[in-house]
Amino acid sequence: MTAKIALEPPTHTTPPARFSHGVRKGNILQVAGQVGFLPAVEGQPPTPAGPTLAEQTLQTLANVKAVLEEGGASWDDVMMIRVYLTDVDHFAEMNGIYDTYFDEQGLTAPPAARTTVYVGLPAGLLIEIDALAVLDH
Amino acid sequence: MTAKIALEPPTHTTPPARFSHGVRKGNILQVAGQVGFLPAVEGQPPTPAGPTLAEQTLQTLANVKAVLEEGGASWDDVMMIRVYLTDVDHFAEMNGIYDTYFDEQGLTAPPAARTTVYVGLPAGLLIEIDALAVLDH
Amino acid sequence: MTAKIALEPPTHTTPPARFSHGVRKGNILQVAGQVGFLPAVEGQPPTPAGPTLAEQTLQTLANVKAVLEEGGASWDDVMMIRVYLTDVDHFAEMNGIYDTYFDEQGLTAPPAARTTVYVGLPAGLLIEIDALAVLDH
Repeated sequence: MTAKIALEPPTHTTPPARFSHGVRKGNILQVAGQVGFLPAVEGQPPTPAGPTLAEQTLQTLANVKAVLEEGGASWDDVMMIRVYLTDVDHFAEMNGIYDTYFDEQGLTAPPAARTTVYVGLPAGLLIEIDALAVLDH
Repeated sequence: MTAKIALEPPTHTTPPARFSHGVRKGNILQVAGQVGFLPAVEGQPPTPAGPTLAEQTLQTLANVKAVLEEGGASWDDVMMIRVYLTDVDHFAEMNGIYDTYFDEQGLTAPPAARTTVYVGLPAGLLIEIDALAVLDH
Repeated sequence: MTAKIALEPPTHTTPPARFSHGVRKGNILQVAGQVGFLPAVEGQPPTPAGPTLAEQTLQTLANVKAVLEEGGASWDDVMMIRVYLTDVDHFAEMNGIYDTYFDEQGLTAPPAARTTVYVGLPAGLLIEIDALAVLDH
């Protein structure tokens, strides 16, 4: 049995279109592109954690993690992390935040692979991250 | 037996390089980046369905679907859809087209995860989409 | 047993953050975004193979291949290749280099699917490539 299930953390904002924040089928789990939105507040539009790269990066990583956990996975199961930044000058700062974050996660498996590219994002958003995980079973 | 097979819908234009429009190996199916090209006409270069976002989005989704079906999959098997737009101002319109399209597909499984980013594409193309699917077996 | 293992070819430069050049878990292998860096030289910063698209494309493909081989895979196992270019005008030239390269690889399976988009990359880099492979077992 390998039904595809949607992963929708209760605190996440409603996706702006007909897609899931994450899906799992068998041992494959895909997290949709997450941004630095704070937990949803009823009646309010999605709101970034703050204007800074640090605030948005940490909130984005927390949002990815929530989807992983909703699917029974952890960072240790993640194979690939795609980081989308809007400015090449943010690379070093993002790497510092990224490393500190993962140092604190207590990973027991090797870190995921990663690709970082520089794209356009909606106004006010500085980072977007998605992730592919393979669970043990 | 898990041979990798190429998925080349007969109506698709020939890829501009040595890649497959899709491949399947075991229960994993990957669709290459599709754009809004109409079915190939012998002796004519690839031609977009039209200049508008709506025309190109619907043709692109049809092209992705054709590759999925060539591999024995359907939208229900799709885990991840990557949407590449050229203009942030196209996001809302694309979402509307996307939702209407998927409403009409009669999905029985939860919708795929999705990431949308804004990149450069060849002149005349407004959207590119690729997809990763996991089949039941 | 499906432990996640890191794939770090000995000649590769150290990643600039806490990620792996590649990871394998079970029969899934993901190669991180590779660029055209020459083999690492102790005490020197990462250096591109040259300023031209041809030099960087060939070195990037060699770097992807090294990660695949570190994980017991080959180009034949690759399902998806993501090519990130910085300039739409590089598409035709890259395709020529790509085709010649793969002609020389002696593939026995169909070529991988591919998506090419145009993004920003750090100064001096013209191409980045990542890859997803599914091994036979």
